[in-house]
Amino acid sequence: MPKSPIADPNEDYPRWYQDVIAKAGLAENGPVRGTMVIRPYGYAIWERIQADIDRRIKAAGADNVYFPLFIPESYLQREAEHVEGFSPELAVVTHAGGKDLTEPVVVRPTSETVFGEQMAKWVNSYRDLPLLLNQWANVVRWEMRPRLFLRTSEFLWQEGHTVHADAEDAAAYALRIHHDVYRDFLVDTLALPVLLGRKTAEERFAGAINTMTCEGITRDRKALQLATSHELGQNFARAFDITYTDEGGTVQTAWTTSWGASTRLVGGLIMGHGDARGLRLPPRIAPTQVAIVVVRDEDGAVDAARQLGDAIAATGARVQVDADTHTGFGRRATDWELKGVPLRIDLGPRDLAEGQATVVRRDTGEKLPIPLGEVPGRIEPLLNEIQAAMLGEATDFRESATTDVASIDEALEAGREGVGRIDWAKLGPEGERRLLDDGVSVRCIQRPDGTVPATEDEPNLQAIVARAY
Amino acid sequence: MPKSPIADPNEDYPRWYQDVIAKAGLAENGPVRGTMVIRPYGYAIWERIQADIDRRIKAAGADNVYFPLFIPESYLQREAEHVEGFSPELAVVTHAGGKDLTEPVVVRPTSETVFGEQMAKWVNSYRDLPLLLNQWANVVRWEMRPRLFLRTSEFLWQEGHTVHADAEDAAAYALRIHHDVYRDFLVDTLALPVLLGRKTAEERFAGAINTMTCEGITRDRKALQLATSHELGQNFARAFDITYTDEGGTVQTAWTTSWGASTRLVGGLIMGHGDARGLRLPPRIAPTQVAIVVVRDEDGAVDAARQLGDAIAATGARVQVDADTHTGFGRRATDWELKGVPLRIDLGPRDLAEGQATVVRRDTGEKLPIPLGEVPGRIEPLLNEIQAAMLGEATDFRESATTDVASIDEALEAGREGVGRIDWAKLGPEGERRLLDDGVSVRCIQRPDGTVPATEDEPNLQAIVARAY
Repeated sequence: MPKSPIADPNEDYPRWYQDVIAKAGLAENGPVRGTMVIRPYGYAIWERIQADIDRRIKAAGADNVYFPLFIPESYLQREAEHVEGFSPELAVVTHAGGKDLTEPVVVRPTSETVFGEQMAKWVNSYRDLPLLLNQWANVVRWEMRPRLFLRTSEFLWQEGHTVHADAEDAAAYALRIHHDVYRDFLVDTLALPVLLGRKTAEERFAGAINTMTCEGITRDRKALQLATSHELGQNFARAFDITYTDEGGTVQTAWTTSWGASTRLVGGLIMGHGDARGLRLPPRIAPTQVAIVVVRDEDGAVDAARQLGDAIAATGARVQVDADTHTGFGRRATDWELKGVPLRIDLGPRDLAEGQATVVRRDTGEKLPIPLGEVPGRIEPLLNEIQAAMLGEATDFRESATTDVASIDEALEAGREGVGRIDWAKLGPEGERRLLDDGVSVRCIQRPDGTVPATEDEPNLQAIVARAY
Repeated sequence: MPKSPIADPNEDYPRWYQDVIAKAGLAENGPVRGTMVIRPYGYAIWERIQADIDRRIKAAGADNVYFPLFIPESYLQREAEHVEGFSPELAVVTHAGGKDLTEPVVVRPTSETVFGEQMAKWVNSYRDLPLLLNQWANVVRWEMRPRLFLRTSEFLWQEGHTVHADAEDAAAYALRIHHDVYRDFLVDTLALPVLLGRKTAEERFAGAINTMTCEGITRDRKALQLATSHELGQNFARAFDITYTDEGGTVQTAWTTSWGASTRLVGGLIMGHGDARGLRLPPRIAPTQVAIVVVRDEDGAVDAARQLGDAIAATGARVQVDADTHTGFGRRATDWELKGVPLRIDLGPRDLAEGQATVVRRDTGEKLPIPLGEVPGRIEPLLNEIQAAMLGEATDFRESATTDVASIDEALEAGREGVGRIDWAKLGPEGERRLLDDGVSVRCIQRPDGTVPATEDEPNLQAIVARAY
């Protein structure tokens, strides 16, 4: 057995994570501390994530726009909680165009303030509402403990910003985005069985009255916040004077929401599905779904691989032919595993002589000998099977990592080892602070059926507690 | 005749440009001087530009990546011409995460340096070449005289960065991008008959040994640089130590290129096709190709419009139904003109009674009465006709704005009024400097057939001179 190119995840999970990112060619550190260079394979995954989320956002009626990177420092100060939350992480431009600036500008850590300022100009009448906007952009939050994809000083994301006539409409839209965009994308495309719920007051976005979250569970049994949708109440509308004239002619203060998901999703994918052999990509997000690996350049193997590749591509699958036979087969097979490609098809001289191919499932490692002519027709069903199996397996893993507990002490123990589930009434804000002292946080509060409660005061709510990235 | 919502372009072109951007809802100024807020309609155009260029870049074999926004100040200093060219425009972060930085970081004005540093690590052997990368990103160049889309302190663009084994391969690739990506996109999609050529030494990118340009001609007879592709020689490879071992085992210094096109393209589209009624969009780039305008909500007009819309959408055209009848028809028709939608279909009670629609071409203003049932089948041919007609008209305009001249004095006069074309041998670097003193620059040097010369020393080259944005 050759030495694995990556660390054993059971022995050193952080090291395994770094190794996968490096060896699969996803990303590396940039020269300025905390920044990240996203390499072609990592960016190809991100492009597919972007396209899928973008389609869902447009289906929810929001329009894309682009707002400036630079925000006047004074804007952030207009919403008290917001400036307090973000001040420690700001990057500030003090010098530009060869001169010191009269008013320093901050590099956006998020854009509620600059959207607020502009949306106030665009909203005049109830007819202008709802105003539903989104942007794809880079943001900067200076990180003391950076980690590739999970926590970088600069990251890529989409941030939605909307204005509504009343609290109900704002709440309904924030929930719609949380469910129809984020939850559906995470479950259906990334095969990540996320936990849904509200954040506690302690964990809310700075300036929000309600933050809804999708929490992933990593293979080292921690929680990872993957997407959030915020009701901002009238906090930003008041700070930026977003008002409108209602049908009766009265001037009203509007209600706003914001919501975002970032390149952290790539980290969630790695930690949600990866195993000792590297990345495992669900077929719907995999840039390459099928790799055809020519074992040796003999007996027309390369031509046969190309023909098979064309036949598979014609079924709509994303296929790549690896005819790079000056590198050994074993090394290449390991590389495709590392990159998490869902199906590998090994084409060796013996396979060709027997008129068959060996199709290898990345998720289970299963090897299926299939007659060559039948391979193209089997690809789509197999990819669908893998997509479903990966969600099923991740769901089983999550359940196995979750313990129902009845006391604060038990919750602390469960949260240290994995995921704890406890009546929110039994834990409460006081219990939450006790857990926090030991590095365990309330990831979300949810109904017994796993849906998002409308308020923290509904009966029978449960708290999900865990350590978090 | 109601007062036009925009200035007369023949009287005040800069004002007309601003008015079109504001009234068509393309963009507005951001709060920090020189920055831009791109509104939904402007961003929808940019998204289509991006998708088209991205497809062409991928077809040319380059992979997308993402590099950091922040670059150590010291990186820029490694290439002498580069730092000299960009220093006056830099924005500098001196403070981040609550502390003064030990080494200030610059916000990227372009990314040759940070790509250079990383590519040096990725290139080891001739087998790693060519290395073909591209990124879509925001960049910052502090602008003293900002103008929306044309010249903003922050703009969006793509920047390609490639490494090659020798000068020939680098030159061929830079030319391929210039022609197959930029020229083809500008001519075939934006219907802009750009002039192609090399920049003179005076006008080259800071650090390049050759800059190739696509120059658009605006309706006020100036030149607008729309995309450039640079051979960087070994300047950056030397500065960042990009070397490789060749087949014979010898270490060689590599050759690099870079190339970019930005949100300035939206400005080029406005100035290349706009008229007294506003924007005119070539069908291939128009987010909405057909607007069906319900004149009055009578006799089932709205239903008829929706049915027609569905039938047109089924042909593959991008169609929008305007049933916003509480706003007057005249105002809405003017708005669709302002937005430059290629075809407007007016559906009034009389049209419906007669079983026909009035199809209005935005490019010519022509009104075509067409029997309702025939409309869907006519859309695609009409859109193709408009696309070709707009390129033809812009080409005629460019030719009418161009004067062939034989002396430096004549070149100066021609360049002040429009475009001058003169033997490069007659003008030369000395003549170029004389023109520059009067605000006229050499936009490019080209062969008599309009193609790009391999060197400045080919015989019979002509210089294109004009004032420029």
